[in-house]
Amino acid sequence: MDPKSIADALTAVRHSRPLVHHITNTVTTNDCANITLCTGAAPVMAAAPEEAGEMAALAGAVVLNIGTLSAAQVESMLIAGRAANERGIPVILDPVGAGATAMRTEACERLLAELDIAVLKGNAGEIGVLAGAGGEVRGVDSAGLAGDPAAVAASCARTYGTVVVMTGPEDYISDGERTLVVGNGNPLMGCLSGTGCMTASVVGAFVAAGDDAVVAAAAACASFSRAGERAAELARGPYSFRTALFDEMANLTEDDLAAHADVRDAGAA
Amino acid sequence: MDPKSIADALTAVRHSRPLVHHITNTVTTNDCANITLCTGAAPVMAAAPEEAGEMAALAGAVVLNIGTLSAAQVESMLIAGRAANERGIPVILDPVGAGATAMRTEACERLLAELDIAVLKGNAGEIGVLAGAGGEVRGVDSAGLAGDPAAVAASCARTYGTVVVMTGPEDYISDGERTLVVGNGNPLMGCLSGTGCMTASVVGAFVAAGDDAVVAAAAACASFSRAGERAAELARGPYSFRTALFDEMANLTEDDLAAHADVRDAGAA
Amino acid sequence: MDPKSIADALTAVRHSRPLVHHITNTVTTNDCANITLCTGAAPVMAAAPEEAGEMAALAGAVVLNIGTLSAAQVESMLIAGRAANERGIPVILDPVGAGATAMRTEACERLLAELDIAVLKGNAGEIGVLAGAGGEVRGVDSAGLAGDPAAVAASCARTYGTVVVMTGPEDYISDGERTLVVGNGNPLMGCLSGTGCMTASVVGAFVAAGDDAVVAAAAACASFSRAGERAAELARGPYSFRTALFDEMANLTEDDLAAHADVRDAGAA
Repeated sequence: MDPKSIADALTAVRHSRPLVHHITNTVTTNDCANITLCTGAAPVMAAAPEEAGEMAALAGAVVLNIGTLSAAQVESMLIAGRAANERGIPVILDPVGAGATAMRTEACERLLAELDIAVLKGNAGEIGVLAGAGGEVRGVDSAGLAGDPAAVAASCARTYGTVVVMTGPEDYISDGERTLVVGNGNPLMGCLSGTGCMTASVVGAFVAAGDDAVVAAAAACASFSRAGERAAELARGPYSFRTALFDEMANLTEDDLAAHADVRDAGAA
Repeated sequence: MDPKSIADALTAVRHSRPLVHHITNTVTTNDCANITLCTGAAPVMAAAPEEAGEMAALAGAVVLNIGTLSAAQVESMLIAGRAANERGIPVILDPVGAGATAMRTEACERLLAELDIAVLKGNAGEIGVLAGAGGEVRGVDSAGLAGDPAAVAASCARTYGTVVVMTGPEDYISDGERTLVVGNGNPLMGCLSGTGCMTASVVGAFVAAGDDAVVAAAAACASFSRAGERAAELARGPYSFRTALFDEMANLTEDDLAAHADVRDAGAA
Repeated sequence: MDPKSIADALTAVRHSRPLVHHITNTVTTNDCANITLCTGAAPVMAAAPEEAGEMAALAGAVVLNIGTLSAAQVESMLIAGRAANERGIPVILDPVGAGATAMRTEACERLLAELDIAVLKGNAGEIGVLAGAGGEVRGVDSAGLAGDPAAVAASCARTYGTVVVMTGPEDYISDGERTLVVGNGNPLMGCLSGTGCMTASVVGAFVAAGDDAVVAAAAACASFSRAGERAAELARGPYSFRTALFDEMANLTEDDLAAHADVRDAGAA
């Protein structure tokens, strides 16, 4: 992957400063707001059915995260998603814990069926469940995936007609035809609650600012994971890592990203 | 403005340790709780209609923040606000995102009509919208204000019969007759989610402990912004700034505040 | 208390990595998720009535925290608690603000009556209120306790047929017959919102992994408080303390814990 196009995707976020509307969980809301700001975009959260559609219509991207879902929240997600779909605003779905409970799996299937989801971002277990490819989920953590990850991501993308971002030690980004792998990152990212949710926010910011969702999502993963690599050098544990992760995301330069982004083709899916 | 009266306002908070009741958003709740503690007051959050009034009646101030409002939450705000009004407990309203959606603007207008709001604290866009003075709001961020900020703050204060705190690079505090300007602060405060919400909590603590709401609110803004100035010297990005901001708020001394508070008269409104 | 059994309890958490299901408040959710991770367990939050029982049944422990309770949330707590009780999964109740409002006191009494609560963890004011022993609560903070703390903890344990963890400068852990005291800790833990909630999460992790709830809860308190002692050495205020507290919890070694845990018998209750 051309390093310049990755760096250009970051520049596009910072120049356009897109508004990223979230309907999300109560665990990592603050993390999502702040990582959106550190990426160079502007966060907003609004879940009431009376305003979810109006706020979505003003946004550059809409992030739906079912981490602490309720029946009422799913209705608001549908309202926001439809308002976004009508205007061509990309919708990102984070299927947190899909596979762990029936309610989560069914909510994801409904959102995928009733909305045009631009990007489906989950961990390997969640994507494996939704792809019908033997994913396992424990609570909200991936507990394994049967099969080749690039093939599962591509298959899931074809099934739902969306771009899939499957996160893990390596991130797989696929629209079903083209599949990219991002090799950046650090194990400390898995020691912190919310890095998955934050990835969805960063993907939202990049997809709002870019034309090609596969490239934008890969650039988002590379940027956030590169910030994680830099942060790990400053950390003495998970929380000093967290402080450094946000700092490094805000301070990330296009030059550093171009030099260190590890984004490559996964081969034919 | 006499530096000693600003420092005395901080002393009053720490001596009386007021209970500050919040009905607030889900994005920055934890920030509000911790900044209340670091200011020297005691936070509590209770939004259920069954207890919102009972808890408000125990408090030194009540902070209402519509950042992630719902129809039910507005009812709880009215219950808490009425319980506070009956007892002369000051109510602080943070009109987060007023102007961005109809629901937010209408909720603020209803709260301002049905309650006696002691302090209305918003950014320039929000205050401009509520003052009918050409404010613009994008998501929850100010996107501009037509006209002279001191005059807009004073006009808004007269319209609603309240003290207005209009935050920005400079903060304007007005009861419609007297208008103060606080010049302290650092641009990093705008790179962090929640500094506006936290300002409302700090204002709540100071207004609970002081007799003169204009002086107390100005002292609150000066204290929090002075902590921001000190924190900026320790920061390598927005999140190390955040850590230092809370530390510096807790460590702020009356001597430092008296020496560095930049609170002046804005002239006749 | 044998230091090795305290250290072994920490080892048990890290080896079994239990899933700790939370139905909790909106103020400190993120803190609870991250401290659970730093302890070596896996957090999940799921409060919808449709999935609260299903998620609880998958967990090693269920933590119920009424810090921002609603009527609907109490119903979900009952669903989750019953699912846990049926399977012998320990339920931890954190009665945040019991005594401050009627709703909170009544919710605790109902949860204690209808569920088999393995551990009731509160501050001295909350436990004192529930024990009918002259506890006082201001907002969500303890405002005092009449009588000998070890006796109150033991009496409360006998009244409700549960293990009581009463936190404060010293923590008292009692099943009504045996009462342990944990002397570890640092005053900075009281300057931070959420340390009480986090204690419940840590207790949940240890009780999930151990056979003896009194020893497990005492080991949990000793571990978290020992992390606080280490963190205080690195802090320049409440928020740098917070960063260090999570780091030190993740980095805590069995050797350090065995050498420094201060867990002793409180004498006959």
